[in-house]
Amino acid sequence: MPRERMVRQVRVGVIGAGQLARMMIPAAIELGVELRVLAEAEGMSAGLAADRVGDYTDIDQVLPFAREVDVVTFDHEHVPQDVLRALVDAGVAVHPGPDALRYAQDKLLMRERLSELGLPVPEWARVSTPGELDAFIGAHDGAAVVKTPRGGYDGKGVRVVRSAAEVAEWFSAIAEDGRDGALLVEELVDFRRELAQLVARRPSGEVAAWPLVETLQVGGVCSEVIAPAPHSAGRLSDVAADVAISIAEGLGVTGVLAVELFETTDDRILVNELAMRPHNSGHWSMDGSTTGQFEQHLRAVLDLPLGGTGTHADWSVMVNLLGGPAEGTLDDRYRGALASHPTVKVHNYGKSPRPGRKVGHVTAVGDDLDEAVYEARAAAAGLQE
Amino acid sequence: MPRERMVRQVRVGVIGAGQLARMMIPAAIELGVELRVLAEAEGMSAGLAADRVGDYTDIDQVLPFAREVDVVTFDHEHVPQDVLRALVDAGVAVHPGPDALRYAQDKLLMRERLSELGLPVPEWARVSTPGELDAFIGAHDGAAVVKTPRGGYDGKGVRVVRSAAEVAEWFSAIAEDGRDGALLVEELVDFRRELAQLVARRPSGEVAAWPLVETLQVGGVCSEVIAPAPHSAGRLSDVAADVAISIAEGLGVTGVLAVELFETTDDRILVNELAMRPHNSGHWSMDGSTTGQFEQHLRAVLDLPLGGTGTHADWSVMVNLLGGPAEGTLDDRYRGALASHPTVKVHNYGKSPRPGRKVGHVTAVGDDLDEAVYEARAAAAGLQE
Repeated sequence: MPRERMVRQVRVGVIGAGQLARMMIPAAIELGVELRVLAEAEGMSAGLAADRVGDYTDIDQVLPFAREVDVVTFDHEHVPQDVLRALVDAGVAVHPGPDALRYAQDKLLMRERLSELGLPVPEWARVSTPGELDAFIGAHDGAAVVKTPRGGYDGKGVRVVRSAAEVAEWFSAIAEDGRDGALLVEELVDFRRELAQLVARRPSGEVAAWPLVETLQVGGVCSEVIAPAPHSAGRLSDVAADVAISIAEGLGVTGVLAVELFETTDDRILVNELAMRPHNSGHWSMDGSTTGQFEQHLRAVLDLPLGGTGTHADWSVMVNLLGGPAEGTLDDRYRGALASHPTVKVHNYGKSPRPGRKVGHVTAVGDDLDEAVYEARAAAAGLQE
Repeated sequence: MPRERMVRQVRVGVIGAGQLARMMIPAAIELGVELRVLAEAEGMSAGLAADRVGDYTDIDQVLPFAREVDVVTFDHEHVPQDVLRALVDAGVAVHPGPDALRYAQDKLLMRERLSELGLPVPEWARVSTPGELDAFIGAHDGAAVVKTPRGGYDGKGVRVVRSAAEVAEWFSAIAEDGRDGALLVEELVDFRRELAQLVARRPSGEVAAWPLVETLQVGGVCSEVIAPAPHSAGRLSDVAADVAISIAEGLGVTGVLAVELFETTDDRILVNELAMRPHNSGHWSMDGSTTGQFEQHLRAVLDLPLGGTGTHADWSVMVNLLGGPAEGTLDDRYRGALASHPTVKVHNYGKSPRPGRKVGHVTAVGDDLDEAVYEARAAAAGLQE
């Protein structure tokens, strides 16, 4: 069989084959990087780059994959600490590393560490009993947000309560857990809006920040992102970038770091959640910035110089495609939606439509905010109707 | 083995696995299109999407590949007419189709057809004997350009001559060929510069044009593209777009069509060559336009509505990486080049460096032409030194 002599390309191994891994593929192709994905199953969103199917909680399945790549990174933050540490012990380059990732995996650890670093966070406490929780609620105007430290995402494992009785089963679960179980409780922040600050950091220290963005959530799931956040020029943007860079440096994060923020009604910025990977709030950058977050993540984990984070136009608006059309697929809706919105960029994750599922997103870029918002929302509606 | 339920994606089959097929992969991923490549060999530039290795001149190898996709398109124009027609006869959707492609495959046919359509071409003739060629040369100030009608690209099969004796072996070859052999001879055009006009056309008729660009060739190979062509606003751009759209419609081209043009010293626009596929002169659009040529080609061959062809900034400058570094690979040069040029976009085709070989390109986008030219050239130099 004929064989062309190819360059041995740098190899990045990605654990997890969801849409974040999928969207790393175009960036890898352009950079000339070979992307190899350890997939949870056949036929997933990043299936094109799947090298094998394996269980990411089993070091015996992860290590053979990891040994064949130059650096390991992630589509999600669920790889257990013991697996991560065994990789590092075996000499594998892992970015972000286990020391950083534990702060994205455990919200109590994250809150403790950010408080130690003097970064702005909501008032919070570790509570191990209903009594402790009710005491916190009593001291905070009768309401609080309770979070399971591990395993939550997209609003799961987060509940607003007025009494510890509302999370009785969570206390039962942590009691049965046997570990030093506790829940995280936080003040119910009176916020004006939610923001997100994305940065990237290389192992050798360079950091780069994109503009601060505004995020809109529906039912705890991101539905829309406006970049930059309206009315954020100057002090607000500077503070947000400083906070995110301090977190990246303080926690030793490598790759892309997303810092979800509250802008409070009394004009404070408080850190809500962290994600140590490309993040929904950064999807706009693929179409609206000189360097998209997936390219930047690859550059960062390979310790390559970071790309510019300027924007193509004054505004980028990203709208998630949640659930997809009630019948058929996104593709079936292309003719109408693309014809009506020729400047909107469509990103189709190739996933089966299912209520609430992120099956794609669209981005509109332009110098008129109202126009970009209209175009992105209308295209998203057209693709899902 | 676990299996995620995926959507059955629309499938585009690409014949040929060079860098043009490679650069279709990112566009396919974003659009949610499954790209399947029929590769000439293992390990080629578009290897990630290779479905199989096969001989594109053998219908028995092409047809089984073609039957499994929704539309067949191309990385190059070398698939023989009999293979193309057999595909169409078997009910395969082929874009561009054989009737259009023959004009890209045979320069004599192309000249005849463009002349019939009244489009501006250099003075030309079909010559079968050295005597006919010398007569043409004598009537055109003692010089002419001789071209083999088939198989030429990147300056191959093209020669400037002052006497038929200089292409004696070409006449011998066409005599032995046995077919109705002839060479194409054209006036040696006194041109100010070379331009290229890219358009895309869907089977259902919609056309879209990018801005007219200026191309610089070195040794017959494209080395640099400036988009839009300086001093081309107004009439020049309008004429070029009209010519390219007339060709797309007149020849029934589907997908991307590149029309290489001469701007003569007496201010005429003459059609030089045609390419019926994404083209080097359109690479800038991946980074500089709302819709890159690879996405537009996929939309067009799938008969989907075409995307906007506006630009992100006033200027885009693309510089080819020809040959690569004398030692090592492009990747080895990343640290220095990316650090010095954070806003330049690098496209690495994953090919082994070899003198004169196109191994990648870089694009700089911005509102200052001099700055964009400097950035693109300096980054390209840094990647190849």
